[in-house]
Amino acid sequence: MLPDHRNWFTEASTETGIGFSLHTKEKLHSEQTPYQTIDIYATETFGNLMVIDGFVMLSTRDNFLYHEMMSHPVIFSHPHPRKVVIIGGGDCGTLQEVLKHPAIQQVTQIDIDERVTRLSELYFPELCQANHDPRAKLLFADGIQWMQQADAGSVDIIIVDSTDPIGPAEGLFQQPFYQECLRVLASDGILVQQSESPLLHLESIIQPMHQAMSSAGFATVRTLHFPQPVYPSGWWSATLAYRNAKVDFRELDAQNKGFDTRYYDAAMHHCAFVLPPFMK
Amino acid sequence: MLPDHRNWFTEASTETGIGFSLHTKEKLHSEQTPYQTIDIYATETFGNLMVIDGFVMLSTRDNFLYHEMMSHPVIFSHPHPRKVVIIGGGDCGTLQEVLKHPAIQQVTQIDIDERVTRLSELYFPELCQANHDPRAKLLFADGIQWMQQADAGSVDIIIVDSTDPIGPAEGLFQQPFYQECLRVLASDGILVQQSESPLLHLESIIQPMHQAMSSAGFATVRTLHFPQPVYPSGWWSATLAYRNAKVDFRELDAQNKGFDTRYYDAAMHHCAFVLPPFMK
Repeated sequence: MLPDHRNWFTEASTETGIGFSLHTKEKLHSEQTPYQTIDIYATETFGNLMVIDGFVMLSTRDNFLYHEMMSHPVIFSHPHPRKVVIIGGGDCGTLQEVLKHPAIQQVTQIDIDERVTRLSELYFPELCQANHDPRAKLLFADGIQWMQQADAGSVDIIIVDSTDPIGPAEGLFQQPFYQECLRVLASDGILVQQSESPLLHLESIIQPMHQAMSSAGFATVRTLHFPQPVYPSGWWSATLAYRNAKVDFRELDAQNKGFDTRYYDAAMHHCAFVLPPFMK
Repeated sequence: MLPDHRNWFTEASTETGIGFSLHTKEKLHSEQTPYQTIDIYATETFGNLMVIDGFVMLSTRDNFLYHEMMSHPVIFSHPHPRKVVIIGGGDCGTLQEVLKHPAIQQVTQIDIDERVTRLSELYFPELCQANHDPRAKLLFADGIQWMQQADAGSVDIIIVDSTDPIGPAEGLFQQPFYQECLRVLASDGILVQQSESPLLHLESIIQPMHQAMSSAGFATVRTLHFPQPVYPSGWWSATLAYRNAKVDFRELDAQNKGFDTRYYDAAMHHCAFVLPPFMK
């Protein structure tokens, strides 16, 4: 049995058979929004922790892995990225990474729940340094509806930085949404979406996502992987869907990116796309 | 607090502030040996689980990551490997991977606790298929003493596949042991040791290990990394210490290895040694 210690937050799932716990100092905040329950903890060794509906969203200590790998690989894979849309991403960590790129002219972030952003500003202020960048536009609305109403060919990169494919985010993992994304992407456009754990979700999420993206009309689909200690199995992935068959990498630009990252660089970019035999 | 469910095994550490749990079906075995306590569980989603002194050692489902990455990178980094010594490794998973290489003529495994091997034969029989290979010699003795008595220049590769650097394995993480290893290695010899989590133990284990290996006289020290879901943070490392300054990789041999692996291949070999910026 799990030891009945106080001061541990635990996310345990009988579906995966895994539990993950962080030693907490105190619960800093808890609220029920119109969309979900958000809890914030101060942990002993991982800084602050945001939990939505009982699922770990991010910690101060290790969110750099996810946010860097959701943004820089796709941006350096696009030949001339200017306009980016983030679906979800309310903690603003991905937004901040995207805005490190001087070439990016406009980022529209659409998260359904404004409270995620307001709480991130309070408890993860280091992720929200770019929220007032004039290139950033923060909307609080339904991402699927937004995509349905967006102009065709108006976006270079779509980043789907959502919760798991159960509950409100379910529609973001389905072919009709991918078809809308394809319509909204300009030529050379790329969609990237978090695609869960290579060990736990290869057959249940990653492979069906490839299938759905291809069926929606994307020419090429590729998955990258990276460590993410606070997510189930500690190993995570993102899947990129390319409008064109040609896969590009602005390697020189990545080598001379001119901003700091802790996990991503040009060499890690290459390696993130190299898959172990069992994933092929 | 941690939910007080029955049927979860949990390893929780206040030092790391992390807890990891697996949903269990039943406890299959528990014993106190002269050296340690060994528990075996059947889990719901990870197969069998071996726990020593409360720390997760391995599961059926994901041990391939650790065992492949402790063996194949070092073997394909040696120009002509023939004799291998494994210190620890009583579950025999590393031994089995090493013996997949036809070039290897002899593997001596020295684990202090015979019960680890006997229980692995019962509960992880798929890891023990090579225990009766005529090239394998299984000794149950103190690895540090064995190394002190071994002939100089008699071994090509030493694999230290031990528990954490607290308790019985502490001496395996110290300079005097590394000096003995250097003495026992032939020219072109390489030592590899598990070096814990890149996220959690960079300053407490990985950096001091580099320092101690260099001080012991190894010419080159390099760390590789890989996912390992059942270990703290889900991200693990191994550190290689080379007798010679020159770092080799028999890439063609790795590409044509002629045996199956699930995580390791020639491309993953390259990438395992590519470190993220924060580790440099």
